[in-house]
Amino acid sequence: MRIAIASDHAAFALKAELAAWLTEEGHEVADLGAYSDARVDYPDFGYKLATAVADGSAERGIALCGSGIGISIAVNRNPALRCALVSEPLSASLAREHNDANAIAMGSRLLGVDMAKACVAAFLTTPFAGGRHEGRVEKLSNPVI
Amino acid sequence: MRIAIASDHAAFALKAELAAWLTEEGHEVADLGAYSDARVDYPDFGYKLATAVADGSAERGIALCGSGIGISIAVNRNPALRCALVSEPLSASLAREHNDANAIAMGSRLLGVDMAKACVAAFLTTPFAGGRHEGRVEKLSNPVI
Repeated sequence: MRIAIASDHAAFALKAELAAWLTEEGHEVADLGAYSDARVDYPDFGYKLATAVADGSAERGIALCGSGIGISIAVNRNPALRCALVSEPLSASLAREHNDANAIAMGSRLLGVDMAKACVAAFLTTPFAGGRHEGRVEKLSNPVI
Repeated sequence: MRIAIASDHAAFALKAELAAWLTEEGHEVADLGAYSDARVDYPDFGYKLATAVADGSAERGIALCGSGIGISIAVNRNPALRCALVSEPLSASLAREHNDANAIAMGSRLLGVDMAKACVAAFLTTPFAGGRHEGRVEKLSNPVI
């Protein structure tokens, strides 16, 4: 799968670990930065990731920051994205089944690397259930603000 | 505090419990529905909650659905909202400290009522840290899509 991954400085190390593992697993990984642990602003990387998924250059996105919260908000500003902030694999599965999530966000200061990998694995392998969930997902693409 | 609360059918019972507790605690609670456990679409209630916070009729929002994921995405479509999907109080505190969150989302099928209350308590009592976080929060209000 073509996967884009992005983080701020706080999650730079976790991003490197996940990108290496996903590449080993046979995925095509686009690392959109940050490229060091020098301070940056998470919204910049959230917007970059959202654009990559929205324009089809990536099929799925993985967004990381210290808590995962800030970057999850940024990614969800794009109405083409459905980004779930997750800390365990059940939520990552539900995000796919019910919300057809095309991105997940995680917090590098809250999750260990094996938990993060378990979330990513659930996110990449769980299909969308469709049915009654389809109309709701469609409403997420046409926000009422 | 003036608090708006909204949910889909799956979180109708949790919403009732939280609304009653918040009222007892002295808050002014606006219950924006759903008003029964008949099937509805979470985006409708997420958008309604976001509007109530964005237009100032509520100071804070609490958004609930089965997993919390779908409604958190809907709320964050509104660039005036910063909604953190949380499952424990540390994330609820960090959402206030770092992201100046004005809404939290929770999943009624994933959290017990006491954990949900602990998240709400952290969300309502933790101040924004300001400083280096201010510019990042500002970027969340001016999304690049």
